[in-house]
Amino acid sequence: MSTAPGEKLINPASASLSEVHRPSSQVVHFAEDAPLRLDCDQLLSPFSVAYQTYGKLNADRSNAILLCHALTGDQHAASANPVTGKPGWWVSLVGPGRPVDTNRFFVICPNIIGGCMGSTGPASINPRTGEPYGLDFPVITIGDMVNAQVRLIDHLGIDQLFAVVGGSMGGMQVLEWAASHSKRVHCAIPIATAAYHSSQNIAFHEVGRQAVMADPDWCRGAYYAEGKVPRNGLSVARMAAHITYLSEEALHKKFGRTLQDRARVTFSFNADFQVESYLRHQGSTFVDRFDANSYLYITRAMDYFDLAAEHGGVLANAFKGTQTRFCVVSFTSDWLYPTRESRLIVHALNAVAANVSFVEIESDKGHDAFLLEEPEFFATIRGFINAAAAKRGIATA
Amino acid sequence: MSTAPGEKLINPASASLSEVHRPSSQVVHFAEDAPLRLDCDQLLSPFSVAYQTYGKLNADRSNAILLCHALTGDQHAASANPVTGKPGWWVSLVGPGRPVDTNRFFVICPNIIGGCMGSTGPASINPRTGEPYGLDFPVITIGDMVNAQVRLIDHLGIDQLFAVVGGSMGGMQVLEWAASHSKRVHCAIPIATAAYHSSQNIAFHEVGRQAVMADPDWCRGAYYAEGKVPRNGLSVARMAAHITYLSEEALHKKFGRTLQDRARVTFSFNADFQVESYLRHQGSTFVDRFDANSYLYITRAMDYFDLAAEHGGVLANAFKGTQTRFCVVSFTSDWLYPTRESRLIVHALNAVAANVSFVEIESDKGHDAFLLEEPEFFATIRGFINAAAAKRGIATA
Repeated sequence: MSTAPGEKLINPASASLSEVHRPSSQVVHFAEDAPLRLDCDQLLSPFSVAYQTYGKLNADRSNAILLCHALTGDQHAASANPVTGKPGWWVSLVGPGRPVDTNRFFVICPNIIGGCMGSTGPASINPRTGEPYGLDFPVITIGDMVNAQVRLIDHLGIDQLFAVVGGSMGGMQVLEWAASHSKRVHCAIPIATAAYHSSQNIAFHEVGRQAVMADPDWCRGAYYAEGKVPRNGLSVARMAAHITYLSEEALHKKFGRTLQDRARVTFSFNADFQVESYLRHQGSTFVDRFDANSYLYITRAMDYFDLAAEHGGVLANAFKGTQTRFCVVSFTSDWLYPTRESRLIVHALNAVAANVSFVEIESDKGHDAFLLEEPEFFATIRGFINAAAAKRGIATA
Repeated sequence: MSTAPGEKLINPASASLSEVHRPSSQVVHFAEDAPLRLDCDQLLSPFSVAYQTYGKLNADRSNAILLCHALTGDQHAASANPVTGKPGWWVSLVGPGRPVDTNRFFVICPNIIGGCMGSTGPASINPRTGEPYGLDFPVITIGDMVNAQVRLIDHLGIDQLFAVVGGSMGGMQVLEWAASHSKRVHCAIPIATAAYHSSQNIAFHEVGRQAVMADPDWCRGAYYAEGKVPRNGLSVARMAAHITYLSEEALHKKFGRTLQDRARVTFSFNADFQVESYLRHQGSTFVDRFDANSYLYITRAMDYFDLAAEHGGVLANAFKGTQTRFCVVSFTSDWLYPTRESRLIVHALNAVAANVSFVEIESDKGHDAFLLEEPEFFATIRGFINAAAAKRGIATA
């Protein structure tokens, strides 16, 4: 592994940082003189946005779909992940012939700023110090993430996106796009999301952050230079979060009280139960692919999200005069972003006479349902996109 | 602070261990030649059971009520806690004129074995080594806790308890008493509990244990001698658990997205939101009163609880031929031990034609409702106890 001039090779032992400086995907660099003004009033510069594209932009640049990823997602939505080697996180929804059909659409998926897959984040080099930002990285918001994406879309020469699609925190970005850049969004598809982060969700995030920060290997955020990784803390954070991504029913069906490779309990603190073994595995593999500081910053951005508060306390104001067509999707067993949160979005859209369809998908898979094979969900997305594309006059391939 | 002969003063800096060796309450010591046979097949000896009593045992010894405490409870149900100085955890339910009326009943509340308030647990001295047990303490079960209580009841010369009452893990002990010592239990009142620990509940416990074990100050369980306390780990464990004790609605009502003593977010990792500040406080005060190893052992005992599995996979078998009168109580917003778990208990009791009443209390307070002022809950307990006492011919004072 060689190092480009002016680049430091930071903590090469950690696979989770292997994409920070030179991502395998495309990347656009915005120079010192083209800073991103953040909601905290700081300027981020220079900054990079790493992104993947699938399919081809048509001649009138009308077939672009932007995918917004969730907390621990990345730009590799529909192709192999360069860190894990596993298929992209939305490969079931996005691809040739899939509901988001890459034979018809030009699909763009950027890594969010604050992330660790090539867009500027806390593991990136702070030009002021020549060292990784660590806790000197500014606290960002969902709005900041979207503004960085706007810069990418400008760079790609796209005036209006045919659709912006995302689940969970991706859905927050979709709502922010629709609210702040309405004219550039023909369709918005917020999935399994909410217009604000609830008290319970903030609480779970705070547990995760405290777990990371309690790990001595976190080194107050400066672990990169020490060649350390707060493995244990980040792993505990992921374990706690992972429970919230599944429904109680899904856990019951998948694991119940089944023991892990043993006939009886061992009267010890070993992973006697399958669910313990599963969670430990989730924690440990997550640490191998994700940066702990990114986890802190991104959870914080989600906590801060409150679209109504940004519009005088009235959510409908966020969408006043919108021409965007909305398709809001929730899942019955999602207790992290329950259907009632989606209804609040729909009510706000109705209050401004927006064009909105709303589908609650029957599923026992919990919040993670939006990442899984759910035929009714896929049919909903396919139907909405095809109808909107037909109306818009986007030619089928 | 002086040390009795043969006793070591262990980690005196930690208030959480101040009651381990010489509890402020009554305590009965069972000698080396009277061991407790544990479910893991080890013998625990000597062992102690620390307990509080309230009220007076009547002449025919028929008015005794046993209270079983929950995970982080103790024997100080209706009187000030010697560690925190706060009122007892069930002072609203138990006391003179209260639903569990100490003017009429002799109320006994033992600290469970595995605890840290004077009953033998991992912080107690291992007679084989002269040092605290730490991880050499055997992994115990709900059945073991109950068997230690049986020894206490024998010691007090009580043949049959008028009632056994407990919520959460206390309710598991109630069920175990009713199943394994049926003839000694006239009434059983299991509250906000289940006959087995669910996959999701095991998962949350495992997160908590991993948080404790990830703390370097845990020292593989041997922190006592090092004068250390795994503060951060135990605090994170408590924070995660605490979320599960409240309902989403309770968190929303209590905190919502209200900021903590500030007009706007600080773009930092400070406790901007009240809910963060509250959780941090919960974590930190818990560490001051509870032993980390006790937390590991008691959560494990709960995970292992599965009353049906102990009876050939059929819960009804646990109660076959029972003469005990049951009052099963659940709370609508309890998602840790939801009403459907109580229904399974009721169905099993119905299947053996047991005398059972079941009340689901409307409450938005979540699992913790059983510790709070809930008039309908109190009326239920008072009514059930009074009617059963009248039928049993226990004189009113």
